[in-house]
Parts: sequence; structure tokens; C-alpha cells
Amino acid sequence: MLYFDHGATSYPKPKNVIAGMIRALEDFCANPGRAGHQSALQASREIYDAREVVAGFFNIKDPKQLIFTLNCTEALNLGIKGVLKSGDHVITTSMEHNSVLRPIKALEKEGVENTIIQCNKDGSLPLEKVDQSIQENTRLIVLTHSSNLTGTLMPIAEVGKIARERGILFLVDAAQTAGLYPIDVEKMYIDLLAAPGHKSLLGPQGSGFLYIKEGLYLKTLKEGGTGSKSQDFVQPDILPDRYESGTPNTPGIIGLKEGIQYIQQQGRENLLRHEESLVKYFLQEVSKLDYIEVYGPKDCKKQSPVVALNFRGMDSSEIAYILDSVFNIAVRPGLHCAPLAHKTIGTLEQGAVRFSFGYSTTMEEVAKGIEAIKTIGSEL
Amino acid sequence: MLYFDHGATSYPKPKNVIAGMIRALEDFCANPGRAGHQSALQASREIYDAREVVAGFFNIKDPKQLIFTLNCTEALNLGIKGVLKSGDHVITTSMEHNSVLRPIKALEKEGVENTIIQCNKDGSLPLEKVDQSIQENTRLIVLTHSSNLTGTLMPIAEVGKIARERGILFLVDAAQTAGLYPIDVEKMYIDLLAAPGHKSLLGPQGSGFLYIKEGLYLKTLKEGGTGSKSQDFVQPDILPDRYESGTPNTPGIIGLKEGIQYIQQQGRENLLRHEESLVKYFLQEVSKLDYIEVYGPKDCKKQSPVVALNFRGMDSSEIAYILDSVFNIAVRPGLHCAPLAHKTIGTLEQGAVRFSFGYSTTMEEVAKGIEAIKTIGSEL
Repeated sequence: MLYFDHGATSYPKPKNVIAGMIRALEDFCANPGRAGHQSALQASREIYDAREVVAGFFNIKDPKQLIFTLNCTEALNLGIKGVLKSGDHVITTSMEHNSVLRPIKALEKEGVENTIIQCNKDGSLPLEKVDQSIQENTRLIVLTHSSNLTGTLMPIAEVGKIARERGILFLVDAAQTAGLYPIDVEKMYIDLLAAPGHKSLLGPQGSGFLYIKEGLYLKTLKEGGTGSKSQDFVQPDILPDRYESGTPNTPGIIGLKEGIQYIQQQGRENLLRHEESLVKYFLQEVSKLDYIEVYGPKDCKKQSPVVALNFRGMDSSEIAYILDSVFNIAVRPGLHCAPLAHKTIGTLEQGAVRFSFGYSTTMEEVAKGIEAIKTIGSEL
Repeated sequence: MLYFDHGATSYPKPKNVIAGMIRALEDFCANPGRAGHQSALQASREIYDAREVVAGFFNIKDPKQLIFTLNCTEALNLGIKGVLKSGDHVITTSMEHNSVLRPIKALEKEGVENTIIQCNKDGSLPLEKVDQSIQENTRLIVLTHSSNLTGTLMPIAEVGKIARERGILFLVDAAQTAGLYPIDVEKMYIDLLAAPGHKSLLGPQGSGFLYIKEGLYLKTLKEGGTGSKSQDFVQPDILPDRYESGTPNTPGIIGLKEGIQYIQQQGRENLLRHEESLVKYFLQEVSKLDYIEVYGPKDCKKQSPVVALNFRGMDSSEIAYILDSVFNIAVRPGLHCAPLAHKTIGTLEQGAVRFSFGYSTTMEEVAKGIEAIKTIGSEL
């Protein structure tokens, strides 16, 4: 199989990720923070280590501000619902994933207003609209770092600066970028950072996190046993306990740590350069084909390693089906859980075929993908 | 290490659980339900298989009514907060875990009333109080199947019958029993069943589920991408999608399935008989020691395989520390995230030392545990 669906989840995982998970399952998967015996303490220490590794990667000073979650969606829900209350206003964009749009729409019923900034046809954000959308009751700006449809990279540091200057909280959805692009929560004025563990961070499904800026106090999504202040009925204030009720996904968290360590060994910038070169080559070749319409910035420096395209007039699912069944190539068709993004680029009816590359994708694989596209095109 | 902390998490896991997770990670960990290519479809099918296996184990007719969660705490939060709204009344007991008490207490602020039934000193439920606690606005009864402190088994079928007759929903917390005791959602009138995957179901940490009776419509805890009805801003109604936003923990879910298959191969009743015999022997021996106070029913037929005890007058953490450091025995001291249960049995100050046994515990190990207790006792 040629796997061009890294935007959904990276595959295969680095060997050390799986090895780390096996080690966790076999050697110390007692319940962390729930007892004082050696195995439980080891689990606690290993999770703390993982917290330090993840925090360090994003320049998060205090690892306790990092909350492990099931996935990025949970992290986004915690960030959005933890901050916003009736009477507040939130700003986001038309390029967001449903994991941002649906919680924000659900909050409308509870009296939270929203403004969804219409992005440009290539997915880019008209920066001046951010400023224009700010109201007196604006409490939060939620912005994806990169569209999961077109890959369009968003100016998060610039938006972060505006938010900070205006006293507004800033939540970044790093679903498509964490692990590959530099993200520094201090320099980029990020108050809340949500990310999945299983995409470019190369960890397993079942892992993700939310960073919460020190001093920021969120409403909890869930309450329960934390192994701390057990005599209290009220969820404790101490972090990360406050937001991490119940038994954590110990093997998943260890796998996430191993994913980051793999990236650090390879060099994040090297991986980025490699993936940029794949996108550059792919864009260059498909742009020559007059029956192909490519969406997004069409510039490997302006988009994460995903490319959305269509065969003119053909349903995206049909193309994906042919790629899969005839060429054994895995891509993702359809709406990608981002309806407004499709409306923005004009593909709400047709959907789009998304090619997304990853750390393990080779130039030869991309070449085979291009060949397959040409073969399909020659038979149209 | 002698591992007597199965009540926190089962350890070690059966070999097939780890093998199943490795298979998932290596062979088909594409993103289920997010694309139509073969690897994504295989992930979807494997998760559906797992859903069928888990559902079948609890006599859940429609696997789609089974919602995979991060842990039992998330399942309980979804069940409790999904059902209750301002003006409702909920009944629970003093033997519940903080994963039940804390969400219920958090809902007080939103106008949800509660009654916490005071249990007897051995943790048992005075059944007549259930009926007496029902009000006109009672919407839900939440009951643990077994106390995580004393092991006391609760009459869930009887309480379920009362609830059904009175038109009240019934949520069972099966954290300490799922996998070991027979649970039939139909026969026991269970409308909502919450369980962790990583205790007696022998799956990995990071897995758990909530069963929701057909036709019961809950408020969501989280909204996001579901891979279905992507054009809608509103969370879809179809199950399990409605309650499973974002990428699932595919390897964890496969591990949970493998855990259940291990139980089915061994025979659930055989495992139960084995663990009952361990408790019987342990209770028999420690009851002879006049410096030991044992809590709970003191009857292997009336308690799940956990035994709470104290060395008279000594702090539970001190005893656990000695067991760990001198004898390499892992137990859990302290409050076990169940403050009212400790108040009920009279150990809120002292805490208690919990010995909890599991499928892999042998009679020889229990004998060594008893020897250790006697050695400590002889030096008091």
C-alpha cells in the first residue's frame, strides 16, 4: 500500500513508539498516581517524563500545565468549553475542523456568540478581519495552525500577538502541524494548544493533549478520581489532576513520548524539509495536468504536507476508490470534517481528494502516486 | 513483585492483549471511519468487531449502543451529565467512587438535586432506602456494582427493577466487576453501564465504555469530527458517532477485545471461582489475627476480590510502605478516591490497606502476602 493519509494518522509508527508501548504494557503498567508501590511509582515517573518531553518540545515551561487527553478533539472541547461562558464571544475561521466548529455551535445554545471569519479561496486568513471581528465581549480566538483540507498555514504568531494585545485568549489547533512545524507557546502568544499524539507527533491513536497557560483556570469537562485530595467532593485545583480524572492511557502516553524522541533524533527540521520537498515535487507535477484542479496555496512553504485536488467534474470518492482498488493507494476523499473549508474553496458538493504525506513517505512513492493520477487521467 | 493491586488495574495483561495491540499498531492503524481505503476500512471493521465482542459479553443487543471512552470516569461523566438537567434529582450511595460523587456534586451548581444513601458499616446497601429516596423529579439512580474499597457487592438487579418500575433511569458503575461477574443489561434493567477496559476486562489502560440503552438520547460531553454528516454543524444523532468524536484509541480498543476473548477462553466463571477462593483463604487467615481489622462483608461470595484492612492503630500508608519496601508487595493504601465509603466504614482518618487480587494471582502469592502480614504483626 502507498499510504498518503498521514493527515488522518501517521503510519507506520516508528519502531521505538511500539517498543515503548510494549515496555509500558509489560513492565510498569500499574496505575500511576493511585498507590505508592514501586510499579505505580514507576508508571507515575514515566508519565511525568513523558509530560516533560512533550512540554519541552513546545517550550512549555511547566509540564504540569500539559493535560493528556484521548485525542485532539477532547483537548479542543476542554479548551473551548473550559473558557467560554454565556455572554462571551469567540472568533474562529471558515477553515476550521468540525472539532472546533461543532463545540462552538453547541455553545450558541448556552448564549455564547461567535464570529466565523471567511477565509480566502486558497484557505488563507485575511488578517485584518481578526481585528475587525473583535468585540467588547470577545474572550477567545480559536485558530487552526494548518487547514486539514488545503494545508494552508495560518499566521498563528501574528494572531497570537493581536489576541495578547487585546487581552483575548488564544487557542491553537495544531492537529496538522504539531511535530513538524516549530511551535513555541511563549513566542507565539499561545494560551491554549491542542494537538493529537498520533499524527505528526508519531505517537499512537488514543493520545493527545491540551496545554493550558499558567494561571488560566478552566471549567472541567469531567470530574472524578484524581488520586489527590480524595476527601474532597470538589475537583481539586492542582494540575494536571484537575483535568485528568480517572486512569490515564499509560501506554499511549509513553508511545507519544517515544514519537517525539524519534522526531528529535531525526531532527524536526530535517523531517519538515523532507516533507516540503515531497509536496513541492507533487505540486509541480500535478499542476501540469489540465484535468486536475489543485486547491490551497500551491506552495510547499505555505502549506503543511497535504494537497487537496480533484479530477475536474469527477466525484472525489470515485477517484479515491480507483486509487485504492486499482493502485493500492490510500488517500482521503469527501468532506474531511471541514464543511466550511470546502465551502470556502468551492468543493462542498464534489468533496476533494486529499493526498497527505508524512515522515515515512519517499519521493519514489510520490512519483508512483503521480503516475497513478496520470494513468487515471489518460483513461478519462 | 507480588502484585495485589488488581483493583487499580490488572497486571500483567494476558499475552494476546499485548499481541493484539501490536497487530493493530503495525498492521491496520489507519484512521477508522475517516476514509474509504483498505487500511481505514480494516481499522473500522476491527473496531466494529471489538464493539460486537464487548456488547455480546454484557448481552447488549445492538453494538452501536456501546460508546468507547478513555476510561470509566469518562463513561460515568457522559452518563451522569448526559441525562441530568436542572430540576432533576439523582440518587446514589455513600460507597461510590469520586468518579460518581464529583460529577454529581458538580451538577449541584446547575440545579441538580441529589440524595446519597448512607450504606451500612460493611458497605451493604439498605435496599428499602432506595425506594424511600425516590422523589417526583428523580431521573437517575447511580450505583456501583461493587465498592472499590470493601468489595461489597451491590444488588444491582433488585435496584434496577425498582428503577424500571418507577420509570427512573439506572446507571451501573461496573469498575470493579466488569469481566468477572455476570452482567446482563437486559435482565438487570440496566439503562447505562460504565466500565473500564483495564481492570477485570484485562484490556489496556486508555480503554473503557458506556452502554446506552436504545432510544435514550444523551447530551454530549464533546462534539467534533465523526466522519459522518460532515456538512452539519450539529453533532449527528447516529450512534456510536454522536458520542465518539475524534480519532478513537484503536490499539486500546483492540486490546480490550482481546482481554474479553481471553476471559471467554478461560471461562469467566472459572476466573471468578478462582478469585473467590483467593479471597476466602485470605479472609480466613487474616481474620485470625487480633491486630488486624478487616472491613466489608468478610465473605468471598458477598465481595469482589478486594479486601480492605488495617493494622490497628497504624497508618495505612505506613503499612503499605513496609509491604512494598521490605516484602516487595504492591497494595494500595489511603482513601481510594472514595471518601464517603471510608466515612461509612470508619476509616476516613486512618485510610485502609487494600489487597486486591486478579486472574493472575496464585494461592501461593496470597500465602506469601499473609506471611508478610504476620511478620509485620510479630514486630509490632
